[in-house]
Amino acid sequence: MVAPATLLWAGWPHVLRAQQFDPQSLDRVFQEARLAEEIINAGGSNLLKGKIVLTLFYEPSTRTRLSFEFATYHLGGRVLSSEAAREFSSAAKGESIEDTIRVVCRYRPAAIVIRHYQEGAAERAASVAADPRTRGPIPVFNAGDGPGQHPTQALLDAYTVWRHRGTLEGATVAVAGDLLYGRTARSLCYLLAKYPGVSVRMVAPHEVQMKEDLLAYLRRHRVPVTQTGDLAAAVRGADVLYVTRIQKERFGADQETYERVRDAFSVTPQILAGLPSHAIVMHPLPRVEGPRSELPTAVDADPRVVIFDQTEAGMYIRMALLRLTCATDRHRH
Amino acid sequence: MVAPATLLWAGWPHVLRAQQFDPQSLDRVFQEARLAEEIINAGGSNLLKGKIVLTLFYEPSTRTRLSFEFATYHLGGRVLSSEAAREFSSAAKGESIEDTIRVVCRYRPAAIVIRHYQEGAAERAASVAADPRTRGPIPVFNAGDGPGQHPTQALLDAYTVWRHRGTLEGATVAVAGDLLYGRTARSLCYLLAKYPGVSVRMVAPHEVQMKEDLLAYLRRHRVPVTQTGDLAAAVRGADVLYVTRIQKERFGADQETYERVRDAFSVTPQILAGLPSHAIVMHPLPRVEGPRSELPTAVDADPRVVIFDQTEAGMYIRMALLRLTCATDRHRH
Amino acid sequence: MVAPATLLWAGWPHVLRAQQFDPQSLDRVFQEARLAEEIINAGGSNLLKGKIVLTLFYEPSTRTRLSFEFATYHLGGRVLSSEAAREFSSAAKGESIEDTIRVVCRYRPAAIVIRHYQEGAAERAASVAADPRTRGPIPVFNAGDGPGQHPTQALLDAYTVWRHRGTLEGATVAVAGDLLYGRTARSLCYLLAKYPGVSVRMVAPHEVQMKEDLLAYLRRHRVPVTQTGDLAAAVRGADVLYVTRIQKERFGADQETYERVRDAFSVTPQILAGLPSHAIVMHPLPRVEGPRSELPTAVDADPRVVIFDQTEAGMYIRMALLRLTCATDRHRH
Repeated sequence: MVAPATLLWAGWPHVLRAQQFDPQSLDRVFQEARLAEEIINAGGSNLLKGKIVLTLFYEPSTRTRLSFEFATYHLGGRVLSSEAAREFSSAAKGESIEDTIRVVCRYRPAAIVIRHYQEGAAERAASVAADPRTRGPIPVFNAGDGPGQHPTQALLDAYTVWRHRGTLEGATVAVAGDLLYGRTARSLCYLLAKYPGVSVRMVAPHEVQMKEDLLAYLRRHRVPVTQTGDLAAAVRGADVLYVTRIQKERFGADQETYERVRDAFSVTPQILAGLPSHAIVMHPLPRVEGPRSELPTAVDADPRVVIFDQTEAGMYIRMALLRLTCATDRHRH
Repeated sequence: MVAPATLLWAGWPHVLRAQQFDPQSLDRVFQEARLAEEIINAGGSNLLKGKIVLTLFYEPSTRTRLSFEFATYHLGGRVLSSEAAREFSSAAKGESIEDTIRVVCRYRPAAIVIRHYQEGAAERAASVAADPRTRGPIPVFNAGDGPGQHPTQALLDAYTVWRHRGTLEGATVAVAGDLLYGRTARSLCYLLAKYPGVSVRMVAPHEVQMKEDLLAYLRRHRVPVTQTGDLAAAVRGADVLYVTRIQKERFGADQETYERVRDAFSVTPQILAGLPSHAIVMHPLPRVEGPRSELPTAVDADPRVVIFDQTEAGMYIRMALLRLTCATDRHRH
Repeated sequence: MVAPATLLWAGWPHVLRAQQFDPQSLDRVFQEARLAEEIINAGGSNLLKGKIVLTLFYEPSTRTRLSFEFATYHLGGRVLSSEAAREFSSAAKGESIEDTIRVVCRYRPAAIVIRHYQEGAAERAASVAADPRTRGPIPVFNAGDGPGQHPTQALLDAYTVWRHRGTLEGATVAVAGDLLYGRTARSLCYLLAKYPGVSVRMVAPHEVQMKEDLLAYLRRHRVPVTQTGDLAAAVRGADVLYVTRIQKERFGADQETYERVRDAFSVTPQILAGLPSHAIVMHPLPRVEGPRSELPTAVDADPRVVIFDQTEAGMYIRMALLRLTCATDRHRH
């Protein structure tokens, strides 16, 4: 049978939703991610030797795909991929994702990384990846399913905080920018709510404030939440400033409002002057370009700006998850 | 020189048309495919170590491409690929397939897998893959050339029958669905005709019946053929039921006829009740989705439905052919 | 630190422009390319074992990409690639190439090969590939940046001459075809001007003659240059005939002129009869097809026509450059 000696997280071995993870399993993943850093610094490993990871992308997401693929290579595995997986389900072919997964499982991949434009696609894939003819369920990684989940992004964000603070407990996190449409800010809040002592500051223009469902969720978990439009005030005393892009297209014809909002939510040196020296500035990337960017390149040299460490952390998280689910030494865990 | 001690099939080492193979060479390939199953179960091999297989796809066919690529990896080889090979022959560039193959042969691939939208493209590729500067002809695999051939699909279908019956001789095969446009049913019939004792039942709505040329071919090879529109009658006593998709687009505006035909050609549990217990149900995939599918998912659990074994068999056939043509140990054969 | 014991070329370790190289560094690269030929003939090597080369293509160029990827594989390295890198900088995402490179450098590639539609893109990429968190600058290879440079093409052309003559010094080179728009002819001239004794014959219809800037450059470097429209006269006594495609689209509605020009610039057997027996005929490929091609397939059998050796030389040049910049044994150099 396929269950590990100790179940690492709900829904194991699949990685479908950030909510699968509790603080204990997150801690296990984060410890493993730190080992991944050491593996990289030692020049790679052979933990996935002979294993093939299949990346099946129904829409392009080069950054995410490459991150998974480098993670696999650094662990000594191999990669096969399709950036045109949408062809499977094209009008002419009309195959369900279930049949596609039933087919590719027969090719004996060690794991399937799936990116899809429809919410729930990864869960549907996982539901059939337990083909009895394979030696166990083939782990399915959700690499983003439309407006739904992107759990490895959520984990890398949480890991970045953990890596710099040693823990997520007690963190004061200012989440700034487009909170209405930004998926990453929401996912991070879901994870933060699992830790004691966390407080969240929602910093958004009133046009794109956080939805009530997440605010209610945080209240249920007794997370103190404040809402403000004043970025300069919000960074004072914060441990983490999580910046997201204000999406121009959300303002339609009203570009005057967009311009005003963008200027009010730019993390300038003046804003950073108010942020504690121990704090970190994060951004899921990509960012808007230019001097009035929400995070201008002019502040990149500030040691608190850890946005590229953050993207690097994504590779470590994926190495950690791949190792925990696919490596032949996984039964040690 | 490059000729093997024993020529395995006509046109060796290329795999261009199903008709290249006779029962003796098919048997050799099928034995090798069974070894491939064992190689997979033993965790892979290094028979293609240091070899690079180039997959050159002028149109997408993710399933076929991945099958070849997994086959290569499981044998320890490496893969380079292009899903955008059409760019070679784009209006602006205007390169002939012959020049493209002359170029890529110089990169020293161990084999070239080609998928093209034009009939005859693979044969043209093979005609120049014997560049004198290489150490021998580079095997070219036809992975489908427009309305032409797709020989590895034909071989995997024949192998699936062989694998379950031990032989193709004496098989009673009911071929159902769209026989007018379906390429796979035609190819399977061509191979079946090479074996003694085979009989074929063509089961199709009159709108999409098998063309006269194939019927004449089967008569010439003294293969008993019946034609019917009655699926329930056709499965009685059959050893193999080979189902293909009724293509909606073939019926144009007359969707009423399409609906009627589709219902008459759905392999329901009632239909399967009439099929012998030792028989198998095959389908080249993809299948139409839904309860009125030609092969509804509701019957997948029937042990006679071997459609995913069939797709898996495709990988074994490709491993067999790659090993026979590229492996450094091939001179043993 | 990352600087090699001896700096091989200006701008090392990046390969951005043909002009970076002087005769001494070219000679070093060419010697290494000859070793690469031996490596291939010996069945490959492991000089890039554990290294990952990232090919990042913002526009398709399958031939160039495959050449780099085969080069990497034959040296024992691994490849990750994107043919859809344009997605990074799509309107919706809007990421600068600098940010993209900052991100992918964190995945720890051994080198980045970049193809871009904008001139200067590779230089911008190189400017940020010296991320302090990596162990040294990550070499950036320019695989063509729009109307700008394609240095490995220039090097493979020069190497082909060197390989056949032993040196570029004293070569009489006839450059024929579309000299106005053809990038490769220009690049080759830039490199030739660095060698003593070289003379150049520009052979073009007056509609597409070489631009004045390059002629002035050659004059400054005291390279004797003649200009003619008479191909038959130009090949007499030449050591190299470098043929390029006459691009139909440059003649707009005036297809009559195009037809006339094309016929006058076709390297027929009659033209070749006037070329010395020791000379070579080169072409950057792809060529126009058909009997009135600028280089008809009918002359391919002439041993002086080395166009496929030339494309093969591209792989050796890329192996040479990859080894010099990425191999762990590079400090020997």
